Amino acid sequence: MSTVGLQRLGQQARAAVKLLSASSGIQRNAALLEMASRVEHDDQLLSANQADVMAAREAGLAPALLDRLTLTPTRIAEITEGCRDVAALPDPLGEVMDGRVLPNGLRIAKRRVPLGVIASIYESRPNVTIEISSLCVKTGNAIILRGGKETLRTNMLLAAQARAACAAAGLPEDAVQLITSTDRELVPRLLAMDDIIDLVIPRGSRGLQDLVRQYAHMPVIYGGIGVCHLFVDASADLERSLPVIHNAKTQAPSVCNALDTILVHSSVAAAFLPQMAANLNGSGVRVLGDERALPLMQGAAGTRPELLDAAAPEDFGREFLSLTLSVKVVDSLDEAIAHIARYSTQHSDGILTNDYANAQRFVAEVDSAAVYVNASTRFTDGGQFGLGAEVAISTQRMHARGPLGLRELTTYKWVVEGDYTVRR
Amino acid sequence: MSTVGLQRLGQQARAAVKLLSASSGIQRNAALLEMASRVEHDDQLLSANQADVMAAREAGLAPALLDRLTLTPTRIAEITEGCRDVAALPDPLGEVMDGRVLPNGLRIAKRRVPLGVIASIYESRPNVTIEISSLCVKTGNAIILRGGKETLRTNMLLAAQARAACAAAGLPEDAVQLITSTDRELVPRLLAMDDIIDLVIPRGSRGLQDLVRQYAHMPVIYGGIGVCHLFVDASADLERSLPVIHNAKTQAPSVCNALDTILVHSSVAAAFLPQMAANLNGSGVRVLGDERALPLMQGAAGTRPELLDAAAPEDFGREFLSLTLSVKVVDSLDEAIAHIARYSTQHSDGILTNDYANAQRFVAEVDSAAVYVNASTRFTDGGQFGLGAEVAISTQRMHARGPLGLRELTTYKWVVEGDYTVRR
Repeated sequence: MSTVGLQRLGQQARAAVKLLSASSGIQRNAALLEMASRVEHDDQLLSANQADVMAAREAGLAPALLDRLTLTPTRIAEITEGCRDVAALPDPLGEVMDGRVLPNGLRIAKRRVPLGVIASIYESRPNVTIEISSLCVKTGNAIILRGGKETLRTNMLLAAQARAACAAAGLPEDAVQLITSTDRELVPRLLAMDDIIDLVIPRGSRGLQDLVRQYAHMPVIYGGIGVCHLFVDASADLERSLPVIHNAKTQAPSVCNALDTILVHSSVAAAFLPQMAANLNGSGVRVLGDERALPLMQGAAGTRPELLDAAAPEDFGREFLSLTLSVKVVDSLDEAIAHIARYSTQHSDGILTNDYANAQRFVAEVDSAAVYVNASTRFTDGGQFGLGAEVAISTQRMHARGPLGLRELTTYKWVVEGDYTVRR
Repeated sequence: MSTVGLQRLGQQARAAVKLLSASSGIQRNAALLEMASRVEHDDQLLSANQADVMAAREAGLAPALLDRLTLTPTRIAEITEGCRDVAALPDPLGEVMDGRVLPNGLRIAKRRVPLGVIASIYESRPNVTIEISSLCVKTGNAIILRGGKETLRTNMLLAAQARAACAAAGLPEDAVQLITSTDRELVPRLLAMDDIIDLVIPRGSRGLQDLVRQYAHMPVIYGGIGVCHLFVDASADLERSLPVIHNAKTQAPSVCNALDTILVHSSVAAAFLPQMAANLNGSGVRVLGDERALPLMQGAAGTRPELLDAAAPEDFGREFLSLTLSVKVVDSLDEAIAHIARYSTQHSDGILTNDYANAQRFVAEVDSAAVYVNASTRFTDGGQFGLGAEVAISTQRMHARGPLGLRELTTYKWVVEGDYTVRR
């Protein structure tokens, strides 16, 4: 795809934003329902996806990645259900976030408006195509999609349905645009278009994020990389800590809010770690202990020797995305906080404690998007937090932190109304 | 200054943020009051500033710029008053922005916290040194200052007082750091420190902003460049429009929310422009008309021929920062909106009208940080909007638009408290 072609696509997106800004919530919701219905009834979708999967298998893609790109009737139903859920959420556009009458009679109000043109670069999972499209159309933003080459056939059908759905609702079909060129050289050129693209959302590996960091001149929301910690304090209820750790590690091990490292206070390590290791090993979790933790777990009742090992230095600060975690014994809350400051990606970190002062200090001093007391890290999620759907989980500080829901895909303008009012 | 030195300075700022995050509002306000008092009583300040001014005069700096860098007892009083005003504002830190109990009993809250390490690169005006320092200390952020070389002597004294004030209040003096090297090569190196600096605020010319755009890999808040428009609609109260335009242009011509271009509906141009030109010429404003506007103004009663001229194409989309403006006759609201979309910097744009539908359309379709109906553009200001002091006026879309007050210098974390709660 030529730079000129890319520019044209961007300008079409800009033009679409203008029309989307003026559209009604009824139209935007109608587009989303139509999108769901069209995806549901697209009888070429599964075969196109199978062609993608076969090509990827031939190219030697790992089984876990093959699974991520595979569509099934169940997964399609999840996609369309998500799309309908977004349609049912309240419309954030036009919301007055703050407003007052100034002493001079001026009426000022912060009114919520779309962010503009968003570009998303993502890998493998084709569900992202409809997820991001639906969230962007709902919020009046135009979206430029750049999916992985492994899912191009699937994405082309999905994007075509999203575009047709917009048109059917009287919205510009250019609200959703898919870059079909798989040329890798294209990404830096896309990231140079800071005059057209208001925000880039990379969804994928650290490599993708680094690429974006290197080339993007527009705002970027980074997210989705979670090295998550739980600290078992000396005062924790040990028995009740077991299911929290088990849940944080095993409920969905491949997602960003899954637990990666457990820190245990040395005064309870001997009592807790054998039980914990047995509990985790029982669900197939591989536990990597540091030099103080490992001996306490080895040989304990219920543990499985093949699932216990020594933690290497690089196992701390590592996002496992699988049924593995690392364990370290620490001597104080301070040491736990310092470890988290060093290794956390500022996604989700928590303390298990019954000590009020320690809970307060942990919450104040651990600087992560979500900080937990006595709960599983698995809750960092737009749906769980009651924000509705989310487009990503931000681990940066500006604009939005944690789950990015509909409101986080908007900005605002100040509307100021007077009676031919002048400043004194 | 070496890269190592710059890194050390950044790490000191990071360490300061940790302490600032844990400080009380009482301490931070005490630091601000101490800062005001110390600046007020610094008996070397005026002589250091005079040395700066003399050196700048010898270097051939333009009189307007010389004026900007000159301190007087009155200006010092304004600086210290501003500092005390910031101390008196409510503390944004710790504010709970949103919170609820989820059905599973989890208590979640968005708690306001500092952004982190902020770097500001600015030109000439030494009042910025204390203004940004006070706003950052108030909000628990550390600030790295890089002022213009013309004001280095003045800035060194001001920064030293700000640091001493922090220390006196029990805060880390590294909360405020001044880069004293005037090596221009240092700016790109500063902008490469995205692992340490959370936000860059450039305050100055378009050249500075372009430099930052080229090199910065961290978030940046651009602002302060305002090409501002007022559209005189066919239904405007012409008599009452005169003082609004006069105010928007003349009250403070050198600031970013001053008026730059007037668009007049053709149906009222003949009636309005002669009066307007006379009104503006009477205050020394030079009026540059397009080919339809100029003949209507030339020779009108009260106009001054030497203050009327033809507008060149580049006089539209130009920020005059002086007693000059450009005028264009348009045939419709659509043409006015299209002109603004093309030439505005999305800072402050307004309509003067008595037509309800036109007012609504203008507000909906003009995509600027502040959109006005029947008021002067001069109100786009943190103080005027009731936000207290401001650090800049953002013309970008992410994080914050328009005046950046205390809240806009913060972010938030999600605090989640449970009772050993797991996700189902």
